[in-house]
Amino acid sequence: MPESTVNTPTPPDGEAPGSCVLAERDGGVLRLTLNRPDHLNAWTREMADLLLARLRAADADPEVRAIVLTGSGRAFCAGADMALLSGLGEAQVQVDGRTLAAPAELRKPVIAAINGPAAGVGLVLALFADVRFAAEDAKLTTSFSRRGLVAEYGAAWQLPRLVGHGRAMDLLLSARVVLGAEAQRMGLVDFAVPREEVLPEALGYARTLAELCSPTSMATIKRQVQRAQTGGFAAAADEAAELMAESFTSADFAEGVGSYLEKRHPEFPGLGTAE
Amino acid sequence: MPESTVNTPTPPDGEAPGSCVLAERDGGVLRLTLNRPDHLNAWTREMADLLLARLRAADADPEVRAIVLTGSGRAFCAGADMALLSGLGEAQVQVDGRTLAAPAELRKPVIAAINGPAAGVGLVLALFADVRFAAEDAKLTTSFSRRGLVAEYGAAWQLPRLVGHGRAMDLLLSARVVLGAEAQRMGLVDFAVPREEVLPEALGYARTLAELCSPTSMATIKRQVQRAQTGGFAAAADEAAELMAESFTSADFAEGVGSYLEKRHPEFPGLGTAE
Amino acid sequence: MPESTVNTPTPPDGEAPGSCVLAERDGGVLRLTLNRPDHLNAWTREMADLLLARLRAADADPEVRAIVLTGSGRAFCAGADMALLSGLGEAQVQVDGRTLAAPAELRKPVIAAINGPAAGVGLVLALFADVRFAAEDAKLTTSFSRRGLVAEYGAAWQLPRLVGHGRAMDLLLSARVVLGAEAQRMGLVDFAVPREEVLPEALGYARTLAELCSPTSMATIKRQVQRAQTGGFAAAADEAAELMAESFTSADFAEGVGSYLEKRHPEFPGLGTAE
Repeated sequence: MPESTVNTPTPPDGEAPGSCVLAERDGGVLRLTLNRPDHLNAWTREMADLLLARLRAADADPEVRAIVLTGSGRAFCAGADMALLSGLGEAQVQVDGRTLAAPAELRKPVIAAINGPAAGVGLVLALFADVRFAAEDAKLTTSFSRRGLVAEYGAAWQLPRLVGHGRAMDLLLSARVVLGAEAQRMGLVDFAVPREEVLPEALGYARTLAELCSPTSMATIKRQVQRAQTGGFAAAADEAAELMAESFTSADFAEGVGSYLEKRHPEFPGLGTAE
Repeated sequence: MPESTVNTPTPPDGEAPGSCVLAERDGGVLRLTLNRPDHLNAWTREMADLLLARLRAADADPEVRAIVLTGSGRAFCAGADMALLSGLGEAQVQVDGRTLAAPAELRKPVIAAINGPAAGVGLVLALFADVRFAAEDAKLTTSFSRRGLVAEYGAAWQLPRLVGHGRAMDLLLSARVVLGAEAQRMGLVDFAVPREEVLPEALGYARTLAELCSPTSMATIKRQVQRAQTGGFAAAADEAAELMAESFTSADFAEGVGSYLEKRHPEFPGLGTAE
Repeated sequence: MPESTVNTPTPPDGEAPGSCVLAERDGGVLRLTLNRPDHLNAWTREMADLLLARLRAADADPEVRAIVLTGSGRAFCAGADMALLSGLGEAQVQVDGRTLAAPAELRKPVIAAINGPAAGVGLVLALFADVRFAAEDAKLTTSFSRRGLVAEYGAAWQLPRLVGHGRAMDLLLSARVVLGAEAQRMGLVDFAVPREEVLPEALGYARTLAELCSPTSMATIKRQVQRAQTGGFAAAADEAAELMAESFTSADFAEGVGSYLEKRHPEFPGLGTAE
């Protein structure tokens, strides 16, 4: 794994600082920041397109091993921009139904650091990260039913799988606000911490993934879980047996066992550019 | 939405007060009460038929926006009537296997207010409501394994989706009693409150749905979640994209955004009679 | 049900005390103990084969009504033996991908008593028990990603169904250690108790199943839940209706209702040898 580099806020492809999604890499951890702080990082088509491009670039970049997604200023993402939604029409906000699920389809882990309010599409974005940290007092809400909308972007599929059917119905039907602490008890987020610790904790978790966990293992595990969501048990078990047999002859396994027996940190190879 | 009407305990179709399922509407909220208090509201075929009829009538009634289901006296529903079960044979109790899932198939939200014991079929009835409130000290149990019975009426399907596989096996195999407070921590119910607050809290929640949430949104969301339970993610995401595009041109969305920007309560249209 | 017999640690088929899986029956409860305490009960092919044989024998033995699975000494099962894994090659450890799911396929309930560390395959073994007890301070970890391995033996399928998708990703990607108490809050285990009470509590729970729950009911319920995991709701509800009709004419139901009305313990017949 590469040395931790100095923390530089310059985005990798030299874009302007006013970009609506900032990118900043520190060692194996890439931080992506939704960046429309004056609008509580409200979701726009431009933001969707840039986020998707940055996620795909990160997945192809051998230096990146884990991704943290957070918001600039005091919000995570307040949802679709209501002024745009009402004033400018759907062309500004409508995106492909599967865009928000992109994190789940990457080979690399995506950690959401929910530093403040996450509403509507902003919450759904967090739901498709692999792991979620939230501020204890962050306000989370699905919003949809109170705006005359539907369960957007696969939320009706993902939410029951995160929190169970009953809690999902509660959150979707009522669109009530839950705070980060309650969200953690429900399984809506995995960790609830004081507001000022959300980003440091999420970055620390990502650093652990980058430094101690095999990139190949994590990519395989993401694919296994994804497939197991709709397939039967037998198929999942048979696939696991095949993947296990492969793994026993891999360099990562040799390094994983070697470093364990030698009580040192592992040096796993990164993922190549191609998928 | 219609004005709240005076709280009148007269059932809408003029039946006798001795009816085994009482109905009472207050504004957009219909309260249905299992009413065999001397038998802890034990389940009978007559009760099943009347409850089903009342649920369907409520779903077709444009005045009703949310339904609360509770029990008369100190129990929610103690399960099938054991005396009937042993004495009179199955004809008295056997109903269609899908009856209890009726609430999940309505367009309108159903809130269970579990005011006291819920056992066997009484618990299953609550499991198919959309959202559950329970008294902290209400006794909940599946009962089946201790009576030589099976997981009745789709409980084997619904319970793991509410509380996870392990907790479902615990509850179904052992038929042990859990109190409302533990049930809330498991996800078996969504809210556990002091006994005297169960009905007021459930009614208040239903009132929020009736007054602040779009009936069309709630109906669409119920259908989306139901379909997503067995379909794949791609189908759910594609359906969501289509429904989103429709919603952006709807009157409910205009009202949802308008009321939000104007900081006032929304006035969403009710659902029509036909489905 | 047979009288509780004196607690004898002699295995049923007269094997040596050095056996890697001990078996000991007390009344209707069979205790199986992983027994390589000097290696933290690390998993070997021999252990897998013997455990599978013992589980199947227990399922066929009419005297056994519930099975408790635990570890000898201070660990539950520390995972695959790393020395074997690195030194001797996969032949020593590779087993059929579905072996660990065997408990879920038995007719009889299997209770895991996680008395100490459970890692990797050791944790997966516990995940496929029907119900889990753990010491509050037992260390649980998936391990795989830190050893360059994959989600082994159907863990990618089972874990999200136990704890929800987000928590499963956290546990699988990071391979972090969770203690029994946190594991209980997540649904990873059902009960967390002080270390010295894990085995007594698990045995007490198993005794309740053996003495108060119908073996036929439990076998049917296990099959119902298993099928409902991948089938649709309608199929589950229709199957339930058919099984309900059968159950109403069964001896177990007569005994279940009779003992209830007479306020005495039931005397349910055991399961026969054949499946």
